[in-house]
Amino acid sequence: MKLDRYLPILRWWRHYQRQQAMHDGMAAVIVTFMLVPQALAYAVLAGLPAQVGLYASMLPLVVYAVLGSSSTLAVGPVAVAALMTATAIAPFAAQSAALGMQAAVILAAISGVFLTAAGVLRLGFLANFLSYPVIAGFMTAASLLIASCQVPVLLGIAATGDNLWQLWQGIFQHAGQWHAATATLSVLAIILLTLTRRFGRTMLERMGWHAYWAAMFSRTVPALLVMASIVLMRLQLPSLEGVKVLGNIPAGLPTLSLPSLDAALWQALWMPALLISIVGYVESISVAQNLAMKRRERLDPDQELLALGCANLAAALSHGQPVTGGVARSVVNMDAGAQTPAAGLFTAIGMGLATLLLTGWLSDLPRYMLAATIVVAVLSVIDLKVFAATWQRSRSDFLALMLTVLMTLFVNVESGISAGVGLSIAMHLYRSSRPHIAIVGQVPGTQHFRNVERHAVDVCPDVVTLRVDESLFFANARYLEQKVLEIVASQAGIKHLVLMCSAVNAIDSSAMEVLQEINSYLSRLNIGFHFSEVKGPVMDKLQHTPLAQQLNGHIYLTQYQAYEALSCVSSHGI
Amino acid sequence: MKLDRYLPILRWWRHYQRQQAMHDGMAAVIVTFMLVPQALAYAVLAGLPAQVGLYASMLPLVVYAVLGSSSTLAVGPVAVAALMTATAIAPFAAQSAALGMQAAVILAAISGVFLTAAGVLRLGFLANFLSYPVIAGFMTAASLLIASCQVPVLLGIAATGDNLWQLWQGIFQHAGQWHAATATLSVLAIILLTLTRRFGRTMLERMGWHAYWAAMFSRTVPALLVMASIVLMRLQLPSLEGVKVLGNIPAGLPTLSLPSLDAALWQALWMPALLISIVGYVESISVAQNLAMKRRERLDPDQELLALGCANLAAALSHGQPVTGGVARSVVNMDAGAQTPAAGLFTAIGMGLATLLLTGWLSDLPRYMLAATIVVAVLSVIDLKVFAATWQRSRSDFLALMLTVLMTLFVNVESGISAGVGLSIAMHLYRSSRPHIAIVGQVPGTQHFRNVERHAVDVCPDVVTLRVDESLFFANARYLEQKVLEIVASQAGIKHLVLMCSAVNAIDSSAMEVLQEINSYLSRLNIGFHFSEVKGPVMDKLQHTPLAQQLNGHIYLTQYQAYEALSCVSSHGI
Repeated sequence: MKLDRYLPILRWWRHYQRQQAMHDGMAAVIVTFMLVPQALAYAVLAGLPAQVGLYASMLPLVVYAVLGSSSTLAVGPVAVAALMTATAIAPFAAQSAALGMQAAVILAAISGVFLTAAGVLRLGFLANFLSYPVIAGFMTAASLLIASCQVPVLLGIAATGDNLWQLWQGIFQHAGQWHAATATLSVLAIILLTLTRRFGRTMLERMGWHAYWAAMFSRTVPALLVMASIVLMRLQLPSLEGVKVLGNIPAGLPTLSLPSLDAALWQALWMPALLISIVGYVESISVAQNLAMKRRERLDPDQELLALGCANLAAALSHGQPVTGGVARSVVNMDAGAQTPAAGLFTAIGMGLATLLLTGWLSDLPRYMLAATIVVAVLSVIDLKVFAATWQRSRSDFLALMLTVLMTLFVNVESGISAGVGLSIAMHLYRSSRPHIAIVGQVPGTQHFRNVERHAVDVCPDVVTLRVDESLFFANARYLEQKVLEIVASQAGIKHLVLMCSAVNAIDSSAMEVLQEINSYLSRLNIGFHFSEVKGPVMDKLQHTPLAQQLNGHIYLTQYQAYEALSCVSSHGI
Repeated sequence: MKLDRYLPILRWWRHYQRQQAMHDGMAAVIVTFMLVPQALAYAVLAGLPAQVGLYASMLPLVVYAVLGSSSTLAVGPVAVAALMTATAIAPFAAQSAALGMQAAVILAAISGVFLTAAGVLRLGFLANFLSYPVIAGFMTAASLLIASCQVPVLLGIAATGDNLWQLWQGIFQHAGQWHAATATLSVLAIILLTLTRRFGRTMLERMGWHAYWAAMFSRTVPALLVMASIVLMRLQLPSLEGVKVLGNIPAGLPTLSLPSLDAALWQALWMPALLISIVGYVESISVAQNLAMKRRERLDPDQELLALGCANLAAALSHGQPVTGGVARSVVNMDAGAQTPAAGLFTAIGMGLATLLLTGWLSDLPRYMLAATIVVAVLSVIDLKVFAATWQRSRSDFLALMLTVLMTLFVNVESGISAGVGLSIAMHLYRSSRPHIAIVGQVPGTQHFRNVERHAVDVCPDVVTLRVDESLFFANARYLEQKVLEIVASQAGIKHLVLMCSAVNAIDSSAMEVLQEINSYLSRLNIGFHFSEVKGPVMDKLQHTPLAQQLNGHIYLTQYQAYEALSCVSSHGI
């Protein structure tokens, strides 16, 4: 039973039925058709040999099928992680292709270690600190950047760069050197891909196809266009001379081997690997969560960390690049009828067959075709509405969004995501270091106490009551101290200070220390220091410390009792 | 008037009186007597030439006097920052003394930049994230480590190390090589220093001295003992041969020059400099805050950052090591009667005179004497009660304390403080990612709603009300989603979910996104989604987003109205 928890496959495998297998198999066929060109494209995008993408689409999928808690998540190479990989390994790939390859494998290994460790330590909550505007902004900016990276390939020129500025500068510098045939075919490919994506399904339905088959067949169109482009190259038309193709791809399945343990490489790559892990996990968990809610299933975020971590370790073992759950493929997987993680298992088999059978053909795959596939895939996920929506919702969120977008576009992906995460956490820390603290007074005729700034309440001139609306702990305790100092400085004649703790659920030792300081400060000034409405767990802590003995005042059960005792009950109240 | 805010000197200089000047002058004399041996000792502790400590005790004090908001803080080299400096510059000092010196100056420069920038950006709140147990544990462990570093000097042997383990290993390896004369004089010096520290004041009072003068004179004893030890060395007794002395110290005041801008050095040192800045700032602000509360003065934490930052920049300009506010010297400064920051100005003049007049003598200062000064100074600040007190207050705080102490003692100071800060922030993030959420029910006979787990309340089987006890934002929104999914999964027959927002003060765009997801999830299941007791600012946000239109339910003014409307008012309530 306990094993069930860590090996979700044990939960569904026993009751696995033929009917489910048929649905899963069908979904696997569709996803395989999508994944072959994408896997090649994302490997090339990462600056790696095309087969690396295929290798990353076999063993990791098997591992995820065993460990994953989502029924429909489709794991494998994805665009954003590929772009981040490209940035991270660029300095090594510049030295030699073999070193770049080694770096990519190490990235997958480190990501695997991070994610697995986070899963074991149940650190899934850390992903919450990548706020929605930051992740949305990052995805949009990264997609724009990925699309821009394809432009030189689409035009048949050589121009690279880490950011929009460098890329477009390179593109304009090569303005005269466009390869006409490549550019023409690129435009054609993009138009065809866009049209089939937009209207393929409807057209097929109008032609009398069943809705399901129309939807599924339209998903395989990119793969069919890729095949057509290969055939076109094989014809060796003289007008197509100079159109660049993938070139030789080693035949057969990947061998398994441990990644290099070169300490210098690991040290240089841990930070980018951490960022890839975070972004990959957040992308994966959001789509998995979304699909799980549609299927009314439960997802275990910590188990997902473990599963993605092991999938990345598997990628590293089989010479693959970092993997994660892909948004588009997962949606297709669900729409195609995937019922259990077995769909991923079947996809892995499909990818294995494709690798064994197709490597000969793939050497003639034109690069512009992969670039076109990428452009159409990523531009469809760009969501510009997020800018207006975030502006409307919160100005500080909009700031985080813009910082992430601009840093991603004009510096590089790593700075973009780091700046976004850093700013999100800094804003959170800032916010939590200033708890909501209100001075309260008595609502006439009741035993209720409310904020003096918002309600017409009675206050007693020599008793000040502060209501703290959060638990007290190291991050915000000093702020309370500052408030008390301000109040004592500004309100002459104050004789008692009451801390109304109705919203204080917990208190830590830093806060205890600050309360003791406040107490001795107020004692010196002959000002009483009292507590009211202290909750059980906080009361326990207060009583076990010297503060209780030294307290220059009392702990009252209710705020009203405190007011009564300090002779402050308003005449309205009697 | 605006200038007043950034140049606190303008606030007190205009009204500066002769009476104050006399008090400040007296305090400066006492502090100078304390600071001369300490400055030399802390430079040596940092692995630097002794004069660096003197240099760090002039210009930085002048700058702090102009910019600082504390009347009594005594700035200069301090023990813990010196130890951290030693660790940070060790790899460079190993290459050459000149490089080590350069590294120390760059550390001061980077700390200066960090602190000044933090002051300008008003990031003083970040210091709150160094929780009390972490800082207390770090100070205690660092003091133990500093004392251990002195043992080889006290015994006249050569042994170094970054942590207790390495140090004591070295000390035992040299067990046979103790220098008898050095060891004897060390023991004598420690005994004399401890006795005068403990009983000097009382003895002088019994001898008929005025309490103030007794207290002040006893503070100068370490300096007098240092002088005595110099005289002893000058006698060139044959039995004292082999006792190590400081050696030649360049005469005169430091020249001003910009620190090296070597990019590699800056890159290697920014992290240790950041840690030194944080620890130094926290040490300084706590003592300044404490003294300000005793004098009933106000302190501006952001101005303190700026002042300490500029003081460090001044240290870098004048070939000094990193500086901060020292605990012991500040207390002495106040007790000696310091009234305004002018006391620091006068101390700087005193240090200048000492440097001009004494450098000839200081070359004969025995090293054991400085080591003895350090040992007695740091052991007096060790606070072992913090262990028991923290254990009593909170187990998780105790964990943070022990991690900090053990890492500091057995790895090095940098790991210790990083681990402490990291764990504090991680615990904070963990806590804030799980807001307190309670299912509430109606207290019979009232319109109040309370936690079903703590109170006898009436609940309606098909309406679940969740009260969220914190503001909703990116860090905790997913947790709410998880809770809702759990409740829907476990409570069959649920028809309405009410979110009682009485404690939700704010809501950000990530939380809005999650609420929308919850809404569409519940819509699909035909479960109503309602809000009650929404506060003004939150209401404004809800109304300006698509959620308001798509909401599968209503927003009720009070929770009671929601219960009434959803036909759930308990019969007791009527």
